[in-house]
Amino acid sequence: MSVLEPVVSTALPGPKSLAAAESLGQVFDTRAVSITCDYDKSEGNYLVDVDGNRYLDVYSQIASIAVGYNNKHLVAAASSHEMVSALVNRPATGNFPSPAWHNALKDGLMKVAPPGMKYIFTAQSGSEANELAYKAAMMLYQRRKRGSAEWSAEETESCLENAKPGSPELAIMSFANSFHGRGFGSLSTTRSKAVHKLDIPAFNWPKAPFPALKYPLDKHVEENKAEEERCLKAVEELILTWPSPVTAVIVEPIQSEGGDNHASAAFFQGLRDVTKKHGVAMIVDEVQTGFGSTGKFWAHEHWNLTSPPDLVTFSKKAQTAGYYFGDELLIPDKAYRQFNTWIGDLARVLVSKAIIEEIQAGDLVAQTARVGELLYAEIEKLAAKYPGKLTNLRGKGMGTYIAFDTPDAAKLVAAMRKLGIMIGSCGKNTIRLRPMLIFTEKHIPQLIGALDQAVSQL
Amino acid sequence: MSVLEPVVSTALPGPKSLAAAESLGQVFDTRAVSITCDYDKSEGNYLVDVDGNRYLDVYSQIASIAVGYNNKHLVAAASSHEMVSALVNRPATGNFPSPAWHNALKDGLMKVAPPGMKYIFTAQSGSEANELAYKAAMMLYQRRKRGSAEWSAEETESCLENAKPGSPELAIMSFANSFHGRGFGSLSTTRSKAVHKLDIPAFNWPKAPFPALKYPLDKHVEENKAEEERCLKAVEELILTWPSPVTAVIVEPIQSEGGDNHASAAFFQGLRDVTKKHGVAMIVDEVQTGFGSTGKFWAHEHWNLTSPPDLVTFSKKAQTAGYYFGDELLIPDKAYRQFNTWIGDLARVLVSKAIIEEIQAGDLVAQTARVGELLYAEIEKLAAKYPGKLTNLRGKGMGTYIAFDTPDAAKLVAAMRKLGIMIGSCGKNTIRLRPMLIFTEKHIPQLIGALDQAVSQL
Repeated sequence: MSVLEPVVSTALPGPKSLAAAESLGQVFDTRAVSITCDYDKSEGNYLVDVDGNRYLDVYSQIASIAVGYNNKHLVAAASSHEMVSALVNRPATGNFPSPAWHNALKDGLMKVAPPGMKYIFTAQSGSEANELAYKAAMMLYQRRKRGSAEWSAEETESCLENAKPGSPELAIMSFANSFHGRGFGSLSTTRSKAVHKLDIPAFNWPKAPFPALKYPLDKHVEENKAEEERCLKAVEELILTWPSPVTAVIVEPIQSEGGDNHASAAFFQGLRDVTKKHGVAMIVDEVQTGFGSTGKFWAHEHWNLTSPPDLVTFSKKAQTAGYYFGDELLIPDKAYRQFNTWIGDLARVLVSKAIIEEIQAGDLVAQTARVGELLYAEIEKLAAKYPGKLTNLRGKGMGTYIAFDTPDAAKLVAAMRKLGIMIGSCGKNTIRLRPMLIFTEKHIPQLIGALDQAVSQL
Repeated sequence: MSVLEPVVSTALPGPKSLAAAESLGQVFDTRAVSITCDYDKSEGNYLVDVDGNRYLDVYSQIASIAVGYNNKHLVAAASSHEMVSALVNRPATGNFPSPAWHNALKDGLMKVAPPGMKYIFTAQSGSEANELAYKAAMMLYQRRKRGSAEWSAEETESCLENAKPGSPELAIMSFANSFHGRGFGSLSTTRSKAVHKLDIPAFNWPKAPFPALKYPLDKHVEENKAEEERCLKAVEELILTWPSPVTAVIVEPIQSEGGDNHASAAFFQGLRDVTKKHGVAMIVDEVQTGFGSTGKFWAHEHWNLTSPPDLVTFSKKAQTAGYYFGDELLIPDKAYRQFNTWIGDLARVLVSKAIIEEIQAGDLVAQTARVGELLYAEIEKLAAKYPGKLTNLRGKGMGTYIAFDTPDAAKLVAAMRKLGIMIGSCGKNTIRLRPMLIFTEKHIPQLIGALDQAVSQL
């Protein structure tokens, strides 16, 4: 990967960026616009804005660019006849698929299916993928309860009234500080910030505590173990006592939006054990962690679980979305229960296939594991150099999925941007690194140099 | 538009179609697969399957193909540099848009914005668009209630617990037999069929009766008027008595999935009046009716409302999704409240722009109005010829958005398919016509000839 120089030669945002946002603002809410970009001039790890400023991008469009701007292999896939057809002749995939659909799944997303996952259901966003997984878990729960009985008239009639027994009170458990999306169901499981949730009705679903680990890990072994045990006990207690059946637990391998909160493999094995014990589906939300950035293709592969999760959802770096599963009972008892007009988008599934090919051809997951170790070591040095300004460093052994706390994350993000580094924050005062999978050893000095300078001025 | 001959030369589904579905079935639920298609051989109004059978397609991928298979103008748009960039460099649109985003909106979706609608929020599916509209209406309701007060600590803390007051009980009203999608919020407003809703928890939201009109309309003027008044009274009664505030009413101009149920312009004007009177947002769900098939670009333009709806949602033929609105108070009080990683997809918005260009260049909405009149007249003759077999003909003056009831819709759909016509059903025993906007006078004889033959054999 070529190494370019970050260049910032205007105030930020620059005048052209501001003018573009003002113009767009006439029809579209632009208050969250950071900069207006020139994607034609962007390349690899470097994002260029309309004022000509060039940034080393370690935020990657909120962790959703895998293999770089204007990646040549992706450009080829996007220019293919197959892609043009997918864009122009968009099928109602559930009714009228083409052989291209099967080929794209077989040679793409199914090639990277997590161990134990044989089936896929596609979607268009992480939020939709999670909701589809919730529905699958709920239908499975009711199917087991119903046994071989047919749907009763009482059930089919009452559900049209949003009433019991057809519309039962069934729950999905999530963890404090989690983020699983913004649909009415996924938002009911999101627990990270009020800005996502305020004013929107929510289901009465349980929230379990997520371990609040202390760093450095090797100095808090017993405390952290006790903390994880406390959380697992709370999970089981909630399953046993919640007023409605808990049909699934959803968990992020690393809570991302909520502040890059980690837990140990032992915690997740415990979660697998307690969910199995009580017949609760375990959904692993790999929307942000999936596709290699933790140094394994799926973050949950770090856990070496004794049996796989029941459902694994994905989106972001996949550039499409959906869920994998292994148990065919998660296919509903009748057709058309999990269904919609498009069921995903072949065009985006083809992009996903090209990304997977690029990852495999470049062995980019292994590269990310290796580069992550080096990057972590460099940041560790900065943490020692600037005590109190760069704390709770986390993500060791998790590829480039590295984060730390700092007294004023927004200030540090702005300072880094002026130095030509696009970086992101999460949680309260956490900086999260989300470089692409093409971030290499060669890019480390630019990131570390800027970070050293910016932190020193905090 | 060229006229080809429908050809069916195999059993249906054909052997290659069956084999393809069996193969796909190893990783994907294929129980809803009708036929496996060869989109390279499909053209204009004609869909070709992998066995070489060619169908005149008046179902159009569940009403979502606007201007024909392999449309040349769309192929050009899909082959453009701009499209390749949109596919490869997918931005987090809310943070890092490009000028291409603004241009695509300005020269595309905003060109066809319904009267009175100045703003747009983009999405990826009709279901998501509706949920985003619900959230906008709910945030507006709470904003009015809160006045200039800041969010309270009680609100921001309780919403993380899914509890009041931060997660208030607010309702969205919909109509019996409506379909608005399958997310947890949109599904709570869907009331058409148990297969969509069973086993999924729902919000306690009100369901109003939708007028059950009698046909032919000119023979039931007084009865139908009374029926619509009864429904409007019920709407107002529910607004006044529902235990939680009704923040919005959502309505389809023609209930599609629920059986192609129509109501008069007077009914919708009445709905506008009662919603305005009580400060309830009126959301018009044009996911299926939008983009010209009723003989106007937006079906709600048939109503000549005294003031526009508050929000209009779209998807399907737009090949992307979202909602339009006119009142800037529907932009939430703070940034990041309506937000997600991608906020739509520039690639699909570019397809949408090309579709709009094609519609305008060919004056296809006016054509659809004209062709619809002729088609309706032909079906009217068949209704007279086959009393009891083709009843409740509806959609006069609504372009090609025509439907009728028949004793066994599934049987008629299968018979039509054997004659080379891909046709769809809805509701209980309704046949819905959903030809593309390029369906012309020349295609009518094929459709009517087959319908005559198939109905005669019922």
